[in-house]
Amino acid sequence: MAASGCKGFFLSAFDYKTEKYVIAKNKKVGVLYRVVQLAIIGYLIGWVFLTKKGYQETEESIQSSVITKLKGVTLTNTTETGLHLWGPEDYVIPPQGETVFFVITNFIETPNQKLGYCAESFRVLDGLCRENSDCTEGETVVAGHGIKSGRCLKKDRNSTGTCEIYGWCPIERHRKPKEPLLAKAENFTIYIKNFIRFPRFGFSKSSVLDTSDDTYLKKCMYDKVHQPYCPIFRLGDLVRWAGHSFQDMALMGGSIGILIEWNCDLDKGYSKCNPHYSFTRLDVKSSASSITSGYNFRYARYYKNAVGESYRTLFKVYGIRFDIMVHGKAGKFNIIPTIINIGSGLAVMGAGAFFCDLVLLYMMKKSTFYRERKFESAKNDTRKTNGEGNVLPEVKGHRKKVLERRQLTDLSPET
Amino acid sequence: MAASGCKGFFLSAFDYKTEKYVIAKNKKVGVLYRVVQLAIIGYLIGWVFLTKKGYQETEESIQSSVITKLKGVTLTNTTETGLHLWGPEDYVIPPQGETVFFVITNFIETPNQKLGYCAESFRVLDGLCRENSDCTEGETVVAGHGIKSGRCLKKDRNSTGTCEIYGWCPIERHRKPKEPLLAKAENFTIYIKNFIRFPRFGFSKSSVLDTSDDTYLKKCMYDKVHQPYCPIFRLGDLVRWAGHSFQDMALMGGSIGILIEWNCDLDKGYSKCNPHYSFTRLDVKSSASSITSGYNFRYARYYKNAVGESYRTLFKVYGIRFDIMVHGKAGKFNIIPTIINIGSGLAVMGAGAFFCDLVLLYMMKKSTFYRERKFESAKNDTRKTNGEGNVLPEVKGHRKKVLERRQLTDLSPET
Amino acid sequence: MAASGCKGFFLSAFDYKTEKYVIAKNKKVGVLYRVVQLAIIGYLIGWVFLTKKGYQETEESIQSSVITKLKGVTLTNTTETGLHLWGPEDYVIPPQGETVFFVITNFIETPNQKLGYCAESFRVLDGLCRENSDCTEGETVVAGHGIKSGRCLKKDRNSTGTCEIYGWCPIERHRKPKEPLLAKAENFTIYIKNFIRFPRFGFSKSSVLDTSDDTYLKKCMYDKVHQPYCPIFRLGDLVRWAGHSFQDMALMGGSIGILIEWNCDLDKGYSKCNPHYSFTRLDVKSSASSITSGYNFRYARYYKNAVGESYRTLFKVYGIRFDIMVHGKAGKFNIIPTIINIGSGLAVMGAGAFFCDLVLLYMMKKSTFYRERKFESAKNDTRKTNGEGNVLPEVKGHRKKVLERRQLTDLSPET
Repeated sequence: MAASGCKGFFLSAFDYKTEKYVIAKNKKVGVLYRVVQLAIIGYLIGWVFLTKKGYQETEESIQSSVITKLKGVTLTNTTETGLHLWGPEDYVIPPQGETVFFVITNFIETPNQKLGYCAESFRVLDGLCRENSDCTEGETVVAGHGIKSGRCLKKDRNSTGTCEIYGWCPIERHRKPKEPLLAKAENFTIYIKNFIRFPRFGFSKSSVLDTSDDTYLKKCMYDKVHQPYCPIFRLGDLVRWAGHSFQDMALMGGSIGILIEWNCDLDKGYSKCNPHYSFTRLDVKSSASSITSGYNFRYARYYKNAVGESYRTLFKVYGIRFDIMVHGKAGKFNIIPTIINIGSGLAVMGAGAFFCDLVLLYMMKKSTFYRERKFESAKNDTRKTNGEGNVLPEVKGHRKKVLERRQLTDLSPET
Repeated sequence: MAASGCKGFFLSAFDYKTEKYVIAKNKKVGVLYRVVQLAIIGYLIGWVFLTKKGYQETEESIQSSVITKLKGVTLTNTTETGLHLWGPEDYVIPPQGETVFFVITNFIETPNQKLGYCAESFRVLDGLCRENSDCTEGETVVAGHGIKSGRCLKKDRNSTGTCEIYGWCPIERHRKPKEPLLAKAENFTIYIKNFIRFPRFGFSKSSVLDTSDDTYLKKCMYDKVHQPYCPIFRLGDLVRWAGHSFQDMALMGGSIGILIEWNCDLDKGYSKCNPHYSFTRLDVKSSASSITSGYNFRYARYYKNAVGESYRTLFKVYGIRFDIMVHGKAGKFNIIPTIINIGSGLAVMGAGAFFCDLVLLYMMKKSTFYRERKFESAKNDTRKTNGEGNVLPEVKGHRKKVLERRQLTDLSPET
Repeated sequence: MAASGCKGFFLSAFDYKTEKYVIAKNKKVGVLYRVVQLAIIGYLIGWVFLTKKGYQETEESIQSSVITKLKGVTLTNTTETGLHLWGPEDYVIPPQGETVFFVITNFIETPNQKLGYCAESFRVLDGLCRENSDCTEGETVVAGHGIKSGRCLKKDRNSTGTCEIYGWCPIERHRKPKEPLLAKAENFTIYIKNFIRFPRFGFSKSSVLDTSDDTYLKKCMYDKVHQPYCPIFRLGDLVRWAGHSFQDMALMGGSIGILIEWNCDLDKGYSKCNPHYSFTRLDVKSSASSITSGYNFRYARYYKNAVGESYRTLFKVYGIRFDIMVHGKAGKFNIIPTIINIGSGLAVMGAGAFFCDLVLLYMMKKSTFYRERKFESAKNDTRKTNGEGNVLPEVKGHRKKVLERRQLTDLSPET
């Protein structure tokens, strides 16, 4: 008996159990349900899969290496040093071709500074004084150029003067430049080489085309339309494409972002994965604060004279800083996201069915009737009760039954 | 006939089919199922959607550009060079305001080094010798300062000496600094400007507030509580917030990470997306190895004397390296993750129903009875078998049916 | 009445409703369905959870800080400057230990350049001329070294000469180096310290082992097999592991990527999360264009003579640029992805059931019969219609019923 039980059980494990359906010949709900189904299928195929490539696993953490090289020379003529020729070794900082580099477009040179005593600039609030007591000895001038020596230097007794400081003298003149000294920098060219790698897919590529044309890189110049893959850019163009005028920017400096976008569908193959360049200004001129726009810094060159005293030339350089930002996104078919999207779509379809049920069972004229049919009570008496068991319709439903039965019985010969 | 068949089929495609349910008047399982439903709905709404914002698509690959500028001067007084004034152009390396920069807090200066012959330091193991044969000519001193000339220099015959080397002489003294020479660096200030962009959402913002107050940036100083959006930081504070003492760190150097966190809910709008700063020390002092903590490197300034011979000043600089790390996360409503979360939640609810079925069908007193009602055999003989096909209850079930039928037949008109 | 209605409704809310199933004693479909179920469960457990760790939430946006330090000295002997000793302060650019750094392996030195007039190089096409009219005064020589003065310098009347330029004279000689001057750079060592942080999990670690052995870092040398966690690398090895010869690369320079991979399962604990190093060449030698391979740039050292005239030494340095790229992926258990994967799996299982239904209802011999049983019409007449409503089988089905009934009545006792 037990054995046969087991066997029976084992066999029945391979019986196919399928849900029992009640057909509600109700076109309204029927159509509604079809619409829901179509909507979900349309969303799944049209939007998730075709538009959003939901069948792909994507990687956004890109490994990138950028090499840059500038070309071009220009001449400047200043009162301090006269004619001076600028080459990349001078105007590119740092010179070794990094991702972020700075191109000098304007500068203030202060040659032959020596350590010693001189008057603080009138521009520095903390440097102003009326008598020596205003210049505490050994105190640093806030946002100034040196250490107060304790004396207050002024033209005459009752004028306002500035503290004497110990520092690099003469101090830098605060005159703003009128026009960029390296205005010609507009014609310099940048060669950008970008090597990227998507670690998850082990895919790597360079932004420089493998061309058979030996002189390609010597001749070409980037152009969104005609030469979208030439890695050589004219400085002036970069700034223009970012929506600004080079000459304006050159005066006080600024910061330009060069965005390199790699949007790769690795299902499509190597050659389809190419960089796209866009350009934007990073130091957006905000309403008021002037500090947020413009870009400058100082550096010094140190010398020693015959007797071994050091002196220096201080450069305050204004210029354009270029930030090369690489962003990449690679997608490749993967079963997991596919299943997830399909699965969740189907589940939502189930929700749709549930919704249609509600309509059918509570919003239709014949709701009560449908409820009776959908829900079969599991009580071992013959009387049916509807699933939601709210009495009023229930009773109606019950009455109907009774009537039906009566009709039956009426026809019965016994009466 | 076929036509009508087609028509029939077409029409029936719009019949709504709904699953047939059996109502088990079993409060235990009923409550259990409601609990399961509530749990899942609670998880979905409370955790996934409200807490984790599961309805959003998120982007973590942020594009960031950082500009830094230091302010402050300090005076040092060393035996080699006497009074010396340090400005940002000297103590910040590199000077052009990069994301990663180094601030000198201490240094060992070795002026007037010339290429020539001198004795290797006693600190270098490979440089020690007892006779010339220990100093193979032309061999590099491992972790040393030059190339062995072949001679062994020692005070007296049987003492231990060091090899003579060709290199920059005099070689650097290995004395550890007692206290930081630029202790005042504690009061220097950093101005950090961070521009970020979320490529997927085309959202970009700067860490510098657009303020109408012209002097805001000149006065403000960052403070977690009072001025969380002021981009100007005091070096001493940064180190303190990272949990260390500036003076200790200044002595041997170290590395501080400035983490800028952008956690943006783009559904909430531009002004709600703001940077949050946190500070941590990167060169965690590990139990033993001393090399992992502290930070220093060497650089040299080259000069030429009247006759054109070059000589240099070597600086071994200790200091604090600041790494500005930007991390961002932006979320925006998107239909796909929403559907995925809802869908999977519903699917799991289905699993809950399956579980409750198991309870109902195999753990209740009246399991057999419920099984009979749930599973309706599809065989075209009158005898019903329950789905699990274990015989005993089956029979019971069968009898019951027969009885019911008899009642019906009693009422049947045929008779 | 209403009260009892509410009560009834409330109670019935805790009635458990379970779908009614029809058991199709059809082993074919039964087995098919079991296979589908097994396949999905296998995929879910075997692939999604065990292989792909689908129960984890992963983070790929890693915060990383890299500190590098080089060791080693070498001697060069050139006609311009004779014996010269190179230390890290000279051959590493920049010297402060950045993520991306450049090691000089070869150079062309042009000492004592002064601003003045001299002949442009013959290598520069735009510099060639036959008479002065070819050298427009004040015009820049394209890809050249200065500004044309207007004169054309040539040996004799009808030979081709080059324009005289104003620039740094003498101009650099274009001779290609024969062999790397710093060939010994092969033995230099890099110490790489990498500190990483996964912001989402607040997990941070350093690539330098916390070892109790004080001298570990002084002795060890990285080796994939024996010392995979030693952060000290020999330059020659790095290049070799990247699949190239150091001496070849040293001649014209190149670019090497050092990839540090952090693949961390944070469920497994701190000690299990370790870096893995790999090495690749970034300037892949492409078929033709020579510019894409090799790496060099220029920098200058400026001097002033007794009378204050500046002169400089120009270095064109060839060398190897090292890019340290850090990539990390951390995973930690999280309920949401788990639910999503399980849920979607179950939903797909539902799709499997639907598919099996199709097989059962339209591909089996007894399809019509199964359809009748699965789909129960909700019309309040006694006549049954099958769900798809195609007439022929319907009628058959109906007849069958009638027959069955008759048989029953035959057995009724009354007769």
